[in-house]
Formats: sequence, C-alpha cells, structure tokens
Amino acid sequence: MSDHVYKQIKLTGSSTESIESAVKQALAKASRTVKNMRWFQVVDTRGHIENGQVAHWQVTIEVGFTLED
Amino acid sequence: MSDHVYKQIKLTGSSTESIESAVKQALAKASRTVKNMRWFQVVDTRGHIENGQVAHWQVTIEVGFTLED
Amino acid sequence: MSDHVYKQIKLTGSSTESIESAVKQALAKASRTVKNMRWFQVVDTRGHIENGQVAHWQVTIEVGFTLED
Amino acid sequence: MSDHVYKQIKLTGSSTESIESAVKQALAKASRTVKNMRWFQVVDTRGHIENGQVAHWQVTIEVGFTLED
Amino acid sequence: MSDHVYKQIKLTGSSTESIESAVKQALAKASRTVKNMRWFQVVDTRGHIENGQVAHWQVTIEVGFTLED
Amino acid sequence: MSDHVYKQIKLTGSSTESIESAVKQALAKASRTVKNMRWFQVVDTRGHIENGQVAHWQVTIEVGFTLED
Amino acid sequence: MSDHVYKQIKLTGSSTESIESAVKQALAKASRTVKNMRWFQVVDTRGHIENGQVAHWQVTIEVGFTLED
Amino acid sequence: MSDHVYKQIKLTGSSTESIESAVKQALAKASRTVKNMRWFQVVDTRGHIENGQVAHWQVTIEVGFTLED
Amino acid sequence: MSDHVYKQIKLTGSSTESIESAVKQALAKASRTVKNMRWFQVVDTRGHIENGQVAHWQVTIEVGFTLED
Amino acid sequence: MSDHVYKQIKLTGSSTESIESAVKQALAKASRTVKNMRWFQVVDTRGHIENGQVAHWQVTIEVGFTLED
Amino acid sequence: MSDHVYKQIKLTGSSTESIESAVKQALAKASRTVKNMRWFQVVDTRGHIENGQVAHWQVTIEVGFTLED
Amino acid sequence: MSDHVYKQIKLTGSSTESIESAVKQALAKASRTVKNMRWFQVVDTRGHIENGQVAHWQVTIEVGFTLED
Repeated sequence: MSDHVYKQIKLTGSSTESIESAVKQALAKASRTVKNMRWFQVVDTRGHIENGQVAHWQVTIEVGFTLED
Repeated sequence: MSDHVYKQIKLTGSSTESIESAVKQALAKASRTVKNMRWFQVVDTRGHIENGQVAHWQVTIEVGFTLED
Repeated sequence: MSDHVYKQIKLTGSSTESIESAVKQALAKASRTVKNMRWFQVVDTRGHIENGQVAHWQVTIEVGFTLED
Repeated sequence: MSDHVYKQIKLTGSSTESIESAVKQALAKASRTVKNMRWFQVVDTRGHIENGQVAHWQVTIEVGFTLED
Repeated sequence: MSDHVYKQIKLTGSSTESIESAVKQALAKASRTVKNMRWFQVVDTRGHIENGQVAHWQVTIEVGFTLED
Repeated sequence: MSDHVYKQIKLTGSSTESIESAVKQALAKASRTVKNMRWFQVVDTRGHIENGQVAHWQVTIEVGFTLED
Repeated sequence: MSDHVYKQIKLTGSSTESIESAVKQALAKASRTVKNMRWFQVVDTRGHIENGQVAHWQVTIEVGFTLED
Repeated sequence: MSDHVYKQIKLTGSSTESIESAVKQALAKASRTVKNMRWFQVVDTRGHIENGQVAHWQVTIEVGFTLED
Repeated sequence: MSDHVYKQIKLTGSSTESIESAVKQALAKASRTVKNMRWFQVVDTRGHIENGQVAHWQVTIEVGFTLED
Repeated sequence: MSDHVYKQIKLTGSSTESIESAVKQALAKASRTVKNMRWFQVVDTRGHIENGQVAHWQVTIEVGFTLED
Repeated sequence: MSDHVYKQIKLTGSSTESIESAVKQALAKASRTVKNMRWFQVVDTRGHIENGQVAHWQVTIEVGFTLED
Repeated sequence: MSDHVYKQIKLTGSSTESIESAVKQALAKASRTVKNMRWFQVVDTRGHIENGQVAHWQVTIEVGFTLED
C-alpha cells in the first residue's frame, strides 16, 4: 500500500457450503477480468432457505485492486 | 440467486416527479450497457430546491447484476 | 402513546406500482391478524428488475401495535 | 455550491397521500420564513395507522440553505 | 419474491463448531413452527469463551418467511 | 447461553418516571405471555412532552428469550 | 401528528444526578423560547469525570415542535 | 461544560484549499450571529470536481454553543 | 482538552438498581488503576432478566483519560 | 444536477503529506479514464505507520460522474 | 454476568483457512496475558488476496474479560 | 499482515494547526510505550472553539499494532 491508487468493487458470491466458499467463488469469477486484487471486506452475509434449510450462502464483499499505470 | 456471482454498482437518477420515477430513469440509462440487472436497493433520497419547491428528486440506488460466464 | 406497551414487527410488502402501495399491501395483510396497529417506519426500500425495468417494489417496515390488556 | 456557507435544519412534513407530498408540505411551510433553500435529504420515513390503514405519511428531511451575507 | 408479504423474525443459534452450524441450528428449531422461510441475514456474530478458547459461536439472524393467505 | 436457540422481540414501554421504569413496564406486560426471557438491549429512548415537560419516557428494547424444546 | 409540520432541534442538558434530570434541564431552558414542543429522542449520553467519579451527566436530545401557522 | 444547556446547529463551509479552511469559513460566518460557540464535530467531508480536480472542499460540521440565561 | 493526548478504554459495569449506578460501578473499579479519567460515553445499555424482571443493568461506556507525560 | 444519471465509484488514494493530497492523487489517476467527474465524498481516512510515524495517508472516496448519453 | 466489571479490547487475528480459525488465533495469543476472557463479538471480517485467491482471513473481534478484584 | 495478531487502541490527539498534526501528536506520544504500530483509522474529528475560532483540532484514531511473540 505505498503510492498506488486503489479501486473498490462490490461483489456477491454464493455457495451451498460455507461463507468462506462464497467469498472464494466471487473472487474466482472476478479474477478472470480484474487484475491486481489486494484485499476484501465482508459487508453482508445472507442466505436462501429451502425446506427449512440453508440452500445457499450469499456473501457480499468489497474488493480493492490496484489501478495500473 | 443460485450459483451466480453478482456485481453491484451505485447510480443516481433524477426526476421532477417522484422517487419512483428517479429510480426508473437510472435503470433506463444503465440498461443500455448493463445486462442481467436483478435487483436494486435505495440508499439515499435527496432533492434540489428552487424557489422553495422541489425541482428534482435525486435517488441513489445500488444495482445488482449477474456476471456472465 | 400514554401508558401502553407496544410490540414492533418487521414486514415486507411488494407492489408493481409504488413504494406507498407496497407499504399498504403489507399493512392490509397484517391487519387480518394484528389489531391496534399504530405506526410504521420504513427501514428498507428495494426492488426486483426484469428486462431492465422495475418489476416489483419491496418495502420493509417496522409496525408498532398496542399489546392489549 | 461555490464559496457559500450553508445551514441545515431538520423538518417533518405529513400527508395523507404520498411520501413526496409530505416533503412538499414541509418545504411549503418552511419557505415562508427560510429563504435560499437549496437541497434536502430524506432521513426518516414513517407513518400513522388508523383502522389498519395508513392515516398519514410522515417524512423527516434535512434542508440546506445559504446563509446570506 | 412476487406479490407476497413477508415477515421477519430475529433468532440466535449457537454451536461449538462454526458460524454456519449456529445458523443451521437456529433454522432447524424455527422450522418446527415456522413454515415458508425464504431467506436470512446475519446481523451479529458473537461467542462465549471458556479457558481462553471459543466455547460457543452465537450467531443472530433475521429470517424472512411468507405470510400465508 | 449453551446450546439453546433464542428469539428476540422488540417492545416499547412507557413511564412517567424514568427510563428504567419504562423498561420494567414493558417486561411486566410481556412476561404474561412470554416465558424464559433472558436479556434485553435498549435500542431507542424517546419521550413525549406536554407543557414543556416530560410527560412520558418511551423506551424501546429488544428482548431475547429461549425457544422451548 | 395530524397535518402539522414539525421542526427538530438538538440540545444538550447536564445534571449532577441522572440522565433523566439532564433531559429535563434541557427542556426547561428550551421551553422559555420554544413553544409547542411535542417529543424528544435521546441521541447521545456522556459525562464528565472528576476524581474518578461522575461530575455531570450530559445528555443530547433532538426535540420536535410544531411550526405554528 | 458545567450546568449549561447547549444547542447544536449544522453548517457546511467550503474552501478551495483544505478541509480545515472550510471549517474555519463556516465558523467565521456563524460567529457573526451566534455567540458562545464551544465545540464542533465534522460529520461529512465532500467536494466538487471540475476538470478532474478538486474545485471546492465542502465540510459539514455540528457546532455546539451555550444557550444564554 | 488543551494539548493532551487521551486514550479511550471500553468498560461494562452492572447494577441491580439503575443505568447510572452501573456506570458508577465501572468507574469505581477502573479508578483503582487508571488515573486522570476525564469523560465517558454510553455505547450500549443492556440487562439480564430473571423471572420476568430486570436482574442487572449492564452499561458499556468508553472512558477517556489523559496520557501522562 | 439536472436530469442526468450519475454513477459512483469508490477509490483510495495515498499521500505522504496530507489527507487533501491523497484525495487529489486518487482523482488525478481516475481522470485519465473517467470523464465528467462532478463530486466526491470522503468515506474512510486511514494511514500506515512506520517507526512510530505516519508513512502514508490513505483516503477512500466515492466519486460521482455523469453517464454520457 | 453478575456484579462484575468487564473491560473490552479489540484484536485482529488471521488465518489462511477460515474465519473461525482467525478468531481462535487471536484468542490463543491474547490468553497468554489476559485472564478471565468471557465473550467476543466479530466487528470486521476482511482478507488479503494474492494471485486472485484468499491469502489470509483477517477477523477483528472485541473481547470482554472480567476485571479482577 | 501475515500470521500476526494485532491489537487496536483508541487515542485522541490535539493540535492548533491541522487534522494531520493532531494525528501525529497522538502517535508521537503513543510511540514512547507502544512498539510495532502498523496502521490507524480516523474515527472522529472534532475541535474546540474560542472567540469564534478553532482553538484545537481533536482527532480520535484507532491504532493497530502487532502483539509480539
């Protein structure tokens, strides 16, 4: 975090397994087009329920990445 | 909201008529370039005043859309 | 608001037309079983998007009602 | 918004019809004594319920106006 | 989320294992009496400590369910 | 707070005397129908004014209670 | 709260005795110049410490009053 | 901060130079009519952009002053 | 509050009697080891319930004290 | 702010000198690719420490710009 | 939580594996010097990204412990 | 930020000159006793007013430092 400029984007990933897995899925998809991702912050943790059970975890993160020169 | 990854962007629309109309104007413009918009959340409702009356409603929304594969 | 005790419940109504209409729909359904509703506060305003347009307004309110003696 | 100084006051208007109308009623009354109002922000949206229906919308706004020289 | 009305309730589940497990425990108990649960949001994550270690995870969620006709 | 599941409800009590008394009044009424109340958190403290003096204190609390097996 | 317009002002009262007493002191002073005060909300509770003990309670409230016609 | 009652007002000052200068400009204008100002708190820091550069800093403060006897 | 540096710590006191008493109990204990305490802010007010009644008030405060030279 | 639609992006700039300079650095970089930037709001002010001193100020802003027709 | 006084401290733990593991790491280190830790609350969940993947989870907690007599 | 555990403390520095200077003063004093400080976040910016002018800037920061092994 020296003299760079960072941009933050907001993503929501989902997973049937865990909060961590939902975050990873969001990063995996974003990494196809966004380079130089440096950090994230979890800003919302939700989920869908089917038949009284968790069907998907849905986790929203803000991701910071370096704006290239 | 199954196994997709969503991105959220923040937009402000304006209207001389109503809060609902300001939201619709923002979505109309965004829909020209953003596909697969799924939901929005109102995060700020403001307005400009001229001669003691509401000149424009200005409504800021966060819009979620599916990142395509 | 004299010496009563109030309970607050959280409801989400939806409408294809307006924010006000979504609130009214929530109250209409709640009034079938809840008596003595006195006030509400809007705590979240969202919506679903289909084909780039608002499909439904979804408004979450907290409703206060008197606990009967 | 050049080199002016603004003051903000907090008002609550009410209306039997709509959120927008409650805001307009607050501005109409304030404009009798406050000059140079420039913008507002909605900070609370509430209402009173009678017989299971919305009796009044009550909308609280912060209004900014220019302090005259 | 079409034209239904939803009610939200606030529950706290606990687990000796994980945050996800605490959420599941809360839903399991609620599903005995509440039908048509659709989504949840995590609003607080806490825990108890015994002998310097996590004894229980305690996770508070808001759960939305459809009000039946 | 071992392996129980808790539900939280939101209540507003009022008193002409004190904040503490308004909380106690809310609990007294709730205890007629809700068993196993364990803790509360004050989330709003308001009051009504008549003739320039406090007429009632109105205190809103969230109350957690054990869901019985 | 029928069709009136309300203005809200922010005051801080202090007392050596209690939170309630600090609120009352603020209202007592305001009532000399402000008519038609209707409600207040406590927004901050602080205090000064001298010799390890509470010297003053300082309570900040927002007070709503009717704008006269 | 002994036994006084304080009132707080909300002001926005602007400056082409710095955040501190915007605060000072707001206080300079307010001091023409408000006596006994004691403290302020910065509640919002914004700015206008022209040609990709900061044109004005706009800083909103809450200012507390003693209500005279 | 001249040119000193202050540190803030977070404490929770409890009392069977009142909110004020819970704050005093926290300060009484802290004053044994912390010198130069100057102010506090109430950041959370909770309580435990036994047999449908308030068993303890639990009040969390942030306390500011001067760092000595 | 007439009938335009605005988009807001979130950027973090850094500077060894001041908060203002960190904001300017973020805008300077963004202006290479984003046209029609109109306003910003400071949403986070942080910094890195080396050897007990501020090494960099890191300021996060939201920047609003006009979506072109 | 009877008549004790509690102090809260803020810690950040990290882990390459999970949110739960980051919390445990923070408690493990703190337990070397802090006795009588009773509860924690998660207040921030972040992480570092390397090569498009989560490198570390970083979880910030507030930990409450009994002040000994 | 690899596998360390961090503790955060809350400090308020003051300065007659600027916000940046108040932060530096707080760090200068803390660095006498706290080693390995890594980052800070500004959480409150206030000031005292004398004769209608800023007498001191008072800036509250949270400072994170590495807990040594």
